[in-house]
Amino acid sequence: MTERSRSGCPINLSLEVLGDSWSLLVLRDMIFGGRRHFRELLNGSEEGIASNILASRLRNLVETGLLTRQPDPTHRQKVIYSLTAQAIDLVPVLAHLGAWGTRWLPVSAELSIRSRLLADGGPALWQRFMAELRAEHLGVPADPSPGGQPVRERLQAAYPAVLSDG
Amino acid sequence: MTERSRSGCPINLSLEVLGDSWSLLVLRDMIFGGRRHFRELLNGSEEGIASNILASRLRNLVETGLLTRQPDPTHRQKVIYSLTAQAIDLVPVLAHLGAWGTRWLPVSAELSIRSRLLADGGPALWQRFMAELRAEHLGVPADPSPGGQPVRERLQAAYPAVLSDG
Repeated sequence: MTERSRSGCPINLSLEVLGDSWSLLVLRDMIFGGRRHFRELLNGSEEGIASNILASRLRNLVETGLLTRQPDPTHRQKVIYSLTAQAIDLVPVLAHLGAWGTRWLPVSAELSIRSRLLADGGPALWQRFMAELRAEHLGVPADPSPGGQPVRERLQAAYPAVLSDG
Repeated sequence: MTERSRSGCPINLSLEVLGDSWSLLVLRDMIFGGRRHFRELLNGSEEGIASNILASRLRNLVETGLLTRQPDPTHRQKVIYSLTAQAIDLVPVLAHLGAWGTRWLPVSAELSIRSRLLADGGPALWQRFMAELRAEHLGVPADPSPGGQPVRERLQAAYPAVLSDG
């Protein structure tokens, strides 16, 4: 990658790897939405990602080492995508980006509740969430559970609660 | 903006406002490089941004409220760009993105030293840096100085030190 990089600045290299904004949205849907199959990512997309864009972004994310791709052991003919450690390490970046958007942009209540909970939880919650993602995607044994509901479930449970308020 | 947004998700809206990756690099050069004129941003670009791309990104950043544009009081016929509070609030996002790139990508030593110092300094350093940027760009009176070298000078001083090691 170094040869064709615009510069060795860490911010520039990060933006080159994350590519256009669709790539980060695909990672967001895998991280926060728990989606791991092409159809789930396509049909569940709030932004209406096109099938060809999704396919090219998934291919690119695998090539740059942010995702891996395996046959799904539970579904013949299906492929399952997994986050790598490098992708899971984006959780604090996404938490800060979501918090910034929530402060400054006209976000919708139902789609910003997860960002608010994540920002409120701070680094301790992000670390716990990352440990859960490592257990799920990398098979890393989880730490002895601190008890309570897993972080993603907690974030997702807040979503219908906001909808029913509206 | 809401009408043509892909969704009201704070991560999506943030990515829509920040646009393509050049926009964030222009903000990076203003925030960390202290550049405020078109020529400085063009000639100092590590990534070799093209003049027409820079012009369109500056126009877009003004339209979306991340920059303001005024005649430069010290140079006739020159325009000076200022960061808005919304842009200054991106410092923690850029700090996390730079730290992620430094951990996972083949960054160059001289361009990653600022990211390392910023990551090591943590939220306390980012807050101090943001207060300095607000004083410089928004005319907000600085807090009684905690003493010592301003953060940007400290980050920039590390850069030639790494070069002379090389």
